Amino acid sequence: MESLRITLEQSEIPTHWYNVVADMPNPPLPPLGPDHQPVSPEQMGMIFPPAILAQEMSAERWIPIPDPVREIYRLWRPSPLIRARRLEEVLGTPARIYYKYEGVSPAGSHKPNTAVPQAYYNQQAGIKRITTETGAGQWGCSMAFAGQMFGLEVRVYMVKISYQQKPFRRSMMQTWGAEVFASPSKMTQSGRDLLARDPENQGSLGIAISEAVEEAASRADTSYALGSVLNHVALHQTIIGQEARKQFEKVGDWPDVIFAPCGGGSSFAGVAFPFVADNAAGGRNGRPTRLVAVEPSSCPTLTKGTYAYDFGDASGFTPLMKMYTLGHDFMPPGIHAGGLRYHGDSPLVSQLYHEGLIEAVAVAQLATFEAGVMFARAEGVIPAPESNHAIRAAIDEAVLCRQNGEARTIFFNLTGHGHFDMAAYDRYFAGDLEDFEYPAEAIRASLEHLPKIR
Amino acid sequence: MESLRITLEQSEIPTHWYNVVADMPNPPLPPLGPDHQPVSPEQMGMIFPPAILAQEMSAERWIPIPDPVREIYRLWRPSPLIRARRLEEVLGTPARIYYKYEGVSPAGSHKPNTAVPQAYYNQQAGIKRITTETGAGQWGCSMAFAGQMFGLEVRVYMVKISYQQKPFRRSMMQTWGAEVFASPSKMTQSGRDLLARDPENQGSLGIAISEAVEEAASRADTSYALGSVLNHVALHQTIIGQEARKQFEKVGDWPDVIFAPCGGGSSFAGVAFPFVADNAAGGRNGRPTRLVAVEPSSCPTLTKGTYAYDFGDASGFTPLMKMYTLGHDFMPPGIHAGGLRYHGDSPLVSQLYHEGLIEAVAVAQLATFEAGVMFARAEGVIPAPESNHAIRAAIDEAVLCRQNGEARTIFFNLTGHGHFDMAAYDRYFAGDLEDFEYPAEAIRASLEHLPKIR
Repeated sequence: MESLRITLEQSEIPTHWYNVVADMPNPPLPPLGPDHQPVSPEQMGMIFPPAILAQEMSAERWIPIPDPVREIYRLWRPSPLIRARRLEEVLGTPARIYYKYEGVSPAGSHKPNTAVPQAYYNQQAGIKRITTETGAGQWGCSMAFAGQMFGLEVRVYMVKISYQQKPFRRSMMQTWGAEVFASPSKMTQSGRDLLARDPENQGSLGIAISEAVEEAASRADTSYALGSVLNHVALHQTIIGQEARKQFEKVGDWPDVIFAPCGGGSSFAGVAFPFVADNAAGGRNGRPTRLVAVEPSSCPTLTKGTYAYDFGDASGFTPLMKMYTLGHDFMPPGIHAGGLRYHGDSPLVSQLYHEGLIEAVAVAQLATFEAGVMFARAEGVIPAPESNHAIRAAIDEAVLCRQNGEARTIFFNLTGHGHFDMAAYDRYFAGDLEDFEYPAEAIRASLEHLPKIR
Repeated sequence: MESLRITLEQSEIPTHWYNVVADMPNPPLPPLGPDHQPVSPEQMGMIFPPAILAQEMSAERWIPIPDPVREIYRLWRPSPLIRARRLEEVLGTPARIYYKYEGVSPAGSHKPNTAVPQAYYNQQAGIKRITTETGAGQWGCSMAFAGQMFGLEVRVYMVKISYQQKPFRRSMMQTWGAEVFASPSKMTQSGRDLLARDPENQGSLGIAISEAVEEAASRADTSYALGSVLNHVALHQTIIGQEARKQFEKVGDWPDVIFAPCGGGSSFAGVAFPFVADNAAGGRNGRPTRLVAVEPSSCPTLTKGTYAYDFGDASGFTPLMKMYTLGHDFMPPGIHAGGLRYHGDSPLVSQLYHEGLIEAVAVAQLATFEAGVMFARAEGVIPAPESNHAIRAAIDEAVLCRQNGEARTIFFNLTGHGHFDMAAYDRYFAGDLEDFEYPAEAIRASLEHLPKIR
């Protein structure tokens, strides 16, 4: 019986993360402070411990994974690489389709890959508490789990509307011992100010970030943790692509094209960056592996945005980062793939895209759910709405292979399961989901507010 | 780095199910019809296909698993055997604790192990549609998934109060293409009769069974499927224990004691029955492995029930089965481990218990949630409330080992994840969960209604 599941031994968990900066044609551009000068390590040190700061700035190709981190990773890693045989049959394609399944983590997504080392480095630095923000709760759950593993208190500021409407990820965080506050809260000055102006404020990710950062900056024993966008987050996620490389070598296959959902960029970076090194060496199949970031057509950062310095948050609180952006006050439509509703993108992903080393494609919401349901019925796994973006692109590619009679190897990152997203599937089946018009006017307006850098 | 996850290759998926009947000291007692005579195969054939009937009656030790079933199993099997190292450390016990994690299946529990072969045998018999019932939805999801794998229509009668209060498992069933009706429904005579008497009827598992059986019995192209209790269901689940035996052999360890939650008995049977054969041969450690069924103290079928012929359902619709029972009209308190709220038990489990080959213990609700949270914080996995019963017993045993300085090997069946049960954890954290008084009076009253067999 052919094995559909390509596994690795726990001893094969990678010993190093891969830093794509070492293989980029040009060095990354630094984040800028309010004075438009590069942010100093001292400023960043207010909210991040030294080891994480060092990784954020590093140009070393290989960065060792500490043993205590690998010991937690082995609770679920290596994650399986799975051949989607039944999906291939349904599509009648000569293509071979594989997916890396990150839904096997305790929190059900790829996010613990970075939450765990972030918790570890903070604990090593003597930090007692971590603050972070969460929207629907995937990142908050991952940080709650990781904090529990290293005995850290975790405080999560959860966007109030999600806190009220999505109680189950909140319960999950509490099961792992985290404190969860509806944001805006009375715990911080920024929360109190907002509530004084509007007691009914339903919150936003930007507000929750402000609260979490304010608390971390005000207490010496407390750090802040972020689940995407930054270089060290992308670094930690490269464990996905590195395992996949070993798994493809094990079965003697190699991807011609890789798809991953792309919001802040960490899941795309995680699976794709390790292949950038192979591509730099000319590729394995006599040609490079195509690396394709898949974003929602309602929030088309790479495909319709501008490459410019912009704030990471809506309120202009963070340093300026050089990235593809739709403008920091662009408010994406309320699609169900909440993890992809971000106006900007990882500076590393952005630069690679700008320099032509990776590709991007945008897909519409209804088409992603159609793909997710087709996948669930063929393969059993019900994917998260974010993952459905990669699945849509992979299916389209497999259909193209059928039309052209090409037996290409297609690989995508199935970033998480959809167990906490069934209400979105419900709305899809009820015909209540919609595609959004390409928000050209809103993007144009928002891009006018980009900060002017000298 | 020591491997915590003991895996098998997909080629090692067992080729046969193990039938414990072959190793029982006495043959099982037959089910009886309304005339108190053994039910004929023709009567059973109204709702089950021939291959399933043959398995239900078989005394053969090994029953081959068809290749198409093994091909679906490999979407998630072999499931991992995991060493709970961090839990051992938290408990400070010299015991070695292992668990078999069945939450990796698409439906998130052990139930697809039997849903898949049931769907296959029905498809082979030319059946087009399967009807079944579900309470909170675990079994309905498993049958929906399995039906989709073999192109069968699946109709699920879901207890109305769950249909309304627990929409997410319903969405999951629909994602796998099943039709789901709130029961009582207008689809069947029994449903219509009940609604005529009481339009507000909230439904019960007994009513849903009646509806599913009525529809299956009235249509030649339709079969009924049951997720626990019956012999063929226990048979299919033995894939769990058989894989575990191979996994223990691989690491050179062997369980001294096995715990599994026990409601209808299929998860206990699945993990424990294959060890009955080892015990019959004297055991591996020079003594038999203790096999312990763990039930809720609010529904203590084995520990407080009577061994007698009784109906399988509340309304007296099914054949009579010789089993431990609290009386078919005993209504268990509303604990959150819905899968364990059953007045009876598998006749095979019951007979093994009656003959002293297995043990049973009852645990209280609050203690099971306490154990589940402790487990989640140590190991990451958030267990289903049913699984928390086995975890409670395993932790108690590990503490005993600490007190006695004994390095025993403890093994339990972690039957499913708790992603759809977070509301129960919520209530636990809020202090709203309670333990129920041992319902002695209700059990006494219900046992008076046992059918009188000549």
